[in-house]
Amino acid sequence: MNSTGTLFRISIFGESHGKLIGVTIDGCPAGIPLKEEDFLEDLKRRQAGAAGTTPRIEKDLPNIVSGCFNGYTTGAPITVVFENQNIQSKDYDHLRKQPRPGHADWVAMQKFGGFNDHRGGGHFSGRLTLGLVAAGVVAKKIADPVQIQASLIEAGGMKDIEKAVDIAEKEDESIGGIIECKASPMPVGIGEPFFDSLESKIAHLVFSIPATKGVEFGSGFPAARMKGSEHNDNILSLDGKTESNHAGGINGGISNGNELVFRVAVKPTSSTGKSQNTLNLESGKVEELKIGGRHDKCIALRVPVVLESITAIAIADLLMQAGARRRVVK
Amino acid sequence: MNSTGTLFRISIFGESHGKLIGVTIDGCPAGIPLKEEDFLEDLKRRQAGAAGTTPRIEKDLPNIVSGCFNGYTTGAPITVVFENQNIQSKDYDHLRKQPRPGHADWVAMQKFGGFNDHRGGGHFSGRLTLGLVAAGVVAKKIADPVQIQASLIEAGGMKDIEKAVDIAEKEDESIGGIIECKASPMPVGIGEPFFDSLESKIAHLVFSIPATKGVEFGSGFPAARMKGSEHNDNILSLDGKTESNHAGGINGGISNGNELVFRVAVKPTSSTGKSQNTLNLESGKVEELKIGGRHDKCIALRVPVVLESITAIAIADLLMQAGARRRVVK
Amino acid sequence: MNSTGTLFRISIFGESHGKLIGVTIDGCPAGIPLKEEDFLEDLKRRQAGAAGTTPRIEKDLPNIVSGCFNGYTTGAPITVVFENQNIQSKDYDHLRKQPRPGHADWVAMQKFGGFNDHRGGGHFSGRLTLGLVAAGVVAKKIADPVQIQASLIEAGGMKDIEKAVDIAEKEDESIGGIIECKASPMPVGIGEPFFDSLESKIAHLVFSIPATKGVEFGSGFPAARMKGSEHNDNILSLDGKTESNHAGGINGGISNGNELVFRVAVKPTSSTGKSQNTLNLESGKVEELKIGGRHDKCIALRVPVVLESITAIAIADLLMQAGARRRVVK
Amino acid sequence: MNSTGTLFRISIFGESHGKLIGVTIDGCPAGIPLKEEDFLEDLKRRQAGAAGTTPRIEKDLPNIVSGCFNGYTTGAPITVVFENQNIQSKDYDHLRKQPRPGHADWVAMQKFGGFNDHRGGGHFSGRLTLGLVAAGVVAKKIADPVQIQASLIEAGGMKDIEKAVDIAEKEDESIGGIIECKASPMPVGIGEPFFDSLESKIAHLVFSIPATKGVEFGSGFPAARMKGSEHNDNILSLDGKTESNHAGGINGGISNGNELVFRVAVKPTSSTGKSQNTLNLESGKVEELKIGGRHDKCIALRVPVVLESITAIAIADLLMQAGARRRVVK
Repeated sequence: MNSTGTLFRISIFGESHGKLIGVTIDGCPAGIPLKEEDFLEDLKRRQAGAAGTTPRIEKDLPNIVSGCFNGYTTGAPITVVFENQNIQSKDYDHLRKQPRPGHADWVAMQKFGGFNDHRGGGHFSGRLTLGLVAAGVVAKKIADPVQIQASLIEAGGMKDIEKAVDIAEKEDESIGGIIECKASPMPVGIGEPFFDSLESKIAHLVFSIPATKGVEFGSGFPAARMKGSEHNDNILSLDGKTESNHAGGINGGISNGNELVFRVAVKPTSSTGKSQNTLNLESGKVEELKIGGRHDKCIALRVPVVLESITAIAIADLLMQAGARRRVVK
Repeated sequence: MNSTGTLFRISIFGESHGKLIGVTIDGCPAGIPLKEEDFLEDLKRRQAGAAGTTPRIEKDLPNIVSGCFNGYTTGAPITVVFENQNIQSKDYDHLRKQPRPGHADWVAMQKFGGFNDHRGGGHFSGRLTLGLVAAGVVAKKIADPVQIQASLIEAGGMKDIEKAVDIAEKEDESIGGIIECKASPMPVGIGEPFFDSLESKIAHLVFSIPATKGVEFGSGFPAARMKGSEHNDNILSLDGKTESNHAGGINGGISNGNELVFRVAVKPTSSTGKSQNTLNLESGKVEELKIGGRHDKCIALRVPVVLESITAIAIADLLMQAGARRRVVK
Repeated sequence: MNSTGTLFRISIFGESHGKLIGVTIDGCPAGIPLKEEDFLEDLKRRQAGAAGTTPRIEKDLPNIVSGCFNGYTTGAPITVVFENQNIQSKDYDHLRKQPRPGHADWVAMQKFGGFNDHRGGGHFSGRLTLGLVAAGVVAKKIADPVQIQASLIEAGGMKDIEKAVDIAEKEDESIGGIIECKASPMPVGIGEPFFDSLESKIAHLVFSIPATKGVEFGSGFPAARMKGSEHNDNILSLDGKTESNHAGGINGGISNGNELVFRVAVKPTSSTGKSQNTLNLESGKVEELKIGGRHDKCIALRVPVVLESITAIAIADLLMQAGARRRVVK
Repeated sequence: MNSTGTLFRISIFGESHGKLIGVTIDGCPAGIPLKEEDFLEDLKRRQAGAAGTTPRIEKDLPNIVSGCFNGYTTGAPITVVFENQNIQSKDYDHLRKQPRPGHADWVAMQKFGGFNDHRGGGHFSGRLTLGLVAAGVVAKKIADPVQIQASLIEAGGMKDIEKAVDIAEKEDESIGGIIECKASPMPVGIGEPFFDSLESKIAHLVFSIPATKGVEFGSGFPAARMKGSEHNDNILSLDGKTESNHAGGINGGISNGNELVFRVAVKPTSSTGKSQNTLNLESGKVEELKIGGRHDKCIALRVPVVLESITAIAIADLLMQAGARRRVVK
């Protein structure tokens, strides 16, 4: 389904080349200051334009159409919409018969019996993350004073990211990357056993971001190679601070007050300048495909702000849940 | 919350040393053959007893208390319960003041104001996965003919798993591992955009398994180091078969008919024979802790069947959703 | 929360005097013909303008901004929005201190700490039912060939509804009414025990329509005065047709194939031309209140199409659920 | 689905003649005193035995199998089970071919393809309300200090209920009744627009109680015959107290602090001593049916405590939601 969350609940709608992309945020408390300017910084960080990103640049101006009044949230659902402006739909006409490798073209066609809007990836487009970023801006206000920061720590297998992008530009190739996200000061006790652990919530949302292929918390995959006495984080003080943080701030699915740390793997952008082979659905033959249009060389460059957003969304929802269950203790 | 799923919905309840551990499976279609014997094989695979696992062995006999009649599911909720028999609660009395590093002892105490059942980890115990395995047995029948197989491909950083366990036994240490799960033949088109992608569903459930710290699909983290032309899987035939399978059988969050492949990182068991330091909550001082009781040296040995179970649960739910949306197309 | 439904899921947003009123329909199958003209007939029936309804008439033109492509649903969420045009917000300025009896003014202020948009009732306005009607149009296509028809069978306690409205106009008073809704041919077997019975689903949605105060199925309240042998509907044929229909087409919460029949009580419009007493929140004194603005004399006149819509929404969702659970029976 | 609620979430399982009837309560805060004795009073009120009720009397001893420790809720899901003891399954053998009029026998058979457990109504049995009553006991503790009281105000069309039951006994007939439920002191501001209004929540749960056919709030159906100036409740003081209470304590779906008042219509028990006609599914002919077994003459006698329970469940869930949204206001 296109909605997620228990108390801080978001729904996403729109297509790359449709009229509007939007998000509805349901369950947001009333009285939070919110105006359209608040979205601009994060939207700008998500935007293309820098080296390694697509030249399709849109203004992406947020329009709050409900749930705000006199500069504050009202308690009613907040809907934020974005117009799609810089549309060159004809670039995509051929996708109907030549599904692009790595993209959702073929599965979307199969799943929806060919009725899907294929233009620019339609509902599967990375443009949909506009809604995640917008919801994240609101979520960050709820999560405050938790500060969430994500950064690209590796691209194309290199720590020198500028250089990696440079090489990719020259080769007309696309590259992936690894993003690390940290949040602190984390409240103790957020995450719900059994199925809404902090890890489950974040992981669920991570894979709503196109191009993500892996997520690991704390020491992650390398933890599988450690010994118990090495991996365990010894508790040092009554507020739960630990000596090391191999757990990434989570025990039993619940935040332990230490820094939340996780990493996400982003695959190379599926659209590459290189020629590829794919099936021609009309002829039934494998043909060469040279993708036109405008693409990101390294989509991972634009993902950190989206990752922060979904982290804030997860924290906001779990924080509200934890609060709800604590206040009636008698 | 302790339930998950849209159409095939499961709820887990119980504590390690409580009266019953159980699972309720809601939404299961009627007319599926089901009897208690059907659970035994998977339950046995989950059970301890082999080298590297805890000597706390329970019979774990499943008792179907609702939703079955004359050997078939009835369409009403199926509840399966297990008695906790081999209980040595006094082993855990000290946890109230000395939370074990790596375990949920401390966070549970904080989250639930000290009212949590601490015995054997209480509701956070790995014993709760009994419910996942039981639900998985039912889910596999719905997912049929999809065959799901998970295996431990690495333990303690070694491919030779027997040897790794051997070393751990000798050192009285615990070790982690990496499990790979594969499923085929996968139907095309399961997974719901935007938030219930096949990856999101599986990842969500993966982190309901205690000790998991990472998940990656297809090429996973290494994909972040590949180039687009290298990573993309060229489509070869009208049924969607691809030349390579870097995507792990998923595009845009939707199954593409190729083998589903993902890997999970399992941390070393938190209980280790080695002495550790932890806070004494009464004295407020860091003290040495030597964990008694019975533990797994390598809990990862027991996780493959749980991973298969949650995969089956995800597939069953998404399969039913996909079916529901397909049948009314006009 | 502002969303409802398991498979056919709707979310409502907007305020009476905000930028947009809208609905997002998630889970709708792909391939259903849908264009903006399809909404006009039902929207017109909901509209004011006739005797007994408010002179605030808006064009209420539906704008499908996502989920449709080339005249068909795509499988992605469908969002339909309406602009608010005929706004006279200053009519409502006094509500901040003088909450109108019978309206949500006071509770909204309390619940949302005064941050609610009070203009025209804000999010509590009857205008929000635009979204229900729009979703109903889509739901009717899924529910087809079920025909749903609601009609006002009584207004102001009279069967002659025109006369009742006439009297209300003359007295400058508002009146209520009773609406009967029928649906046939009903499929057998829709409704989910225990909590998503057909009656529960419909009742839940009925009370999302402002001004409704009661719902009864089949013989309803008078059934409480019948004897068992009188009330029971004898089954006559293998397709479940019964001699009488006191049950209103539902047994055990599940449709039995007979006509679905229920009635809804609509209270008199809270806004009446008559002077009333209410508290002045500033002075803390009870004062006379004479409501200005434009009102319906008999809002019940505009409710039948909304009732049909929510019935279609309930049927569509339960139909899809029933289908999902039937198709995998082995 | 067999679960309901957003934060205080309950799941019901079991069949009339199965092994266990049970309920799982998920989301209950930790630290609430709870022991098995706490359930006995309400369970006794639900029990049969009095004039007008079935002679099938079961001890109905609650067994808390999870979620409680040392006399307090732990924050983990609470499961309460009841054994079915007084079973005479052979009384029901004929139902396979002769579905009882008014019961769910026929629809259950159709919906579940004949795989349903038909004995004693199976999952559709009134015995399932044991779970509602058990959940209600916990919910009342959360809703405290709200006092909820339901009483049968009419049976068989008479205010003298004893006499009505007496007549029914003599005639070997079954009768229905009307139950009024009141709750106070109600907190202001519970109920969520748009779809989780206090009325929607209660109505949804009311129709999970077998035999209910109508619900009305405040003045209810008679409100449809009142005039606006007559029906509106004038606000008298800053705490929201009103002069009259035609609204039943709810405006715009949200509690206004006045007494919550609603009434429910209960149909006559479907099982009556009188001969009836029904279809023989084998012969395809309408035949006389004389129902054996043990029945209630007036099931409405046992419904008040169930109605209180579901009211408490609705209030607990909405109270927790309201709290969650209020506490982060900044």
